[in-house]
Amino acid sequence: MRKIIITAGGTSEKIDNVRKITNSSTGKLGKLIAEHLINTIRDLKLYYICSKDALRPNSKANIIEVESVDDLKNKVQFLLRNEDIDVFIHSMAVSDYTVDFTTTFNNIGKCDCLDYDDFSTNVEKNNDNKISSNEEHLVIFLKKTIKVISIVKNISPRTFLVGFKLLDGVSKDKLISVAGDLMKKNNCDIVVANDLSNIRNGCHIAYILDESGEIETAKGKDDIAKRLVKKIINN
Amino acid sequence: MRKIIITAGGTSEKIDNVRKITNSSTGKLGKLIAEHLINTIRDLKLYYICSKDALRPNSKANIIEVESVDDLKNKVQFLLRNEDIDVFIHSMAVSDYTVDFTTTFNNIGKCDCLDYDDFSTNVEKNNDNKISSNEEHLVIFLKKTIKVISIVKNISPRTFLVGFKLLDGVSKDKLISVAGDLMKKNNCDIVVANDLSNIRNGCHIAYILDESGEIETAKGKDDIAKRLVKKIINN
Repeated sequence: MRKIIITAGGTSEKIDNVRKITNSSTGKLGKLIAEHLINTIRDLKLYYICSKDALRPNSKANIIEVESVDDLKNKVQFLLRNEDIDVFIHSMAVSDYTVDFTTTFNNIGKCDCLDYDDFSTNVEKNNDNKISSNEEHLVIFLKKTIKVISIVKNISPRTFLVGFKLLDGVSKDKLISVAGDLMKKNNCDIVVANDLSNIRNGCHIAYILDESGEIETAKGKDDIAKRLVKKIINN
Repeated sequence: MRKIIITAGGTSEKIDNVRKITNSSTGKLGKLIAEHLINTIRDLKLYYICSKDALRPNSKANIIEVESVDDLKNKVQFLLRNEDIDVFIHSMAVSDYTVDFTTTFNNIGKCDCLDYDDFSTNVEKNNDNKISSNEEHLVIFLKKTIKVISIVKNISPRTFLVGFKLLDGVSKDKLISVAGDLMKKNNCDIVVANDLSNIRNGCHIAYILDESGEIETAKGKDDIAKRLVKKIINN
């Protein structure tokens, strides 16, 4: 049996009990990849980790809903440690930042600290469950999240890892170079590189890079999903 | 013919081309109100203004999708100016703030301005379409949005206006007092006041205040919708 994890959709980070920062991603590509895998591999156990609003395959997938990056990390860790995962396809738009705290413009002015740790300890913060709307200007301080992709090979070196890189309005060379960096840094076996400006234009071109240095060009989400599944199966 | 506008769901404000700040609201109450109105009023023209992800009534409503507060404001203004709207039911969770700009913690330290206008003019900002994830700390500066509810009676004094107030973890007295303030400030005919802590507990109690000072207690979204529609029709 092949055990595969797909992450899809986008994470969201809470600002307070009613507001959150979300990463726009419909999960359309993740869903297509899932469906191609379901149609191609007979003896498949598929974990589909996604946001509440994400599109998802119709059947045969174990759906695991996540919200924040931390939530995603915990569920990915649990699966990698407890199941013998063959392939990890990380198509989710994961937030690079989470909310550290919120405050007001006036509170920043009152605090004379140059170092972030010092500042974040001493500045007066908003502590309400639902932040009041009385202030003219609110300020949200964000801190980096853990890179979920970086934990995959650390926990499970034998898992075949597919990463995704999305940039906006860069050249093909730049895109492929950044995707190559992602591959090296996280020991990916495949990286799918695409550009938002293409997606917006309705012409979704993706470059599928593999470890051998080969670059395959795919056009449209369905073609990307098909070529990716073929590469995974041939591995 | 009765012409009614319902707003439902939550607005979202763009941070960049992939990230946004959203107000969590499923649109469930707005949908229920719409369905009770459709079932009760035969000669009805219903405009249902909602976010992309919001729940919506099955039929007979003119669905108008909006994203940001500004977007909502423009569409509300257009309808109020061009249609003779009888009732405006404002159940949408509208963001109190929109993104002014984003920057880094280091850039804030470099800028020695005490006044917000001065600061926001001079501080170095992030200008990328998709903000880079290289910085350890990002900072989002927010500014107040226009209160959409405040424009309703200004444009169309005869429109029957239903406002909503959502607080988190306050006493009944406090909730009703704040809802009363909202009513006075915006010339609402009815205000529905509810508390997030109740909603989370699965026991959604709402207080329906009207201009006469009467306060009706409703339990559960369906009961809220029913009582509200009855009050609107009896008006």
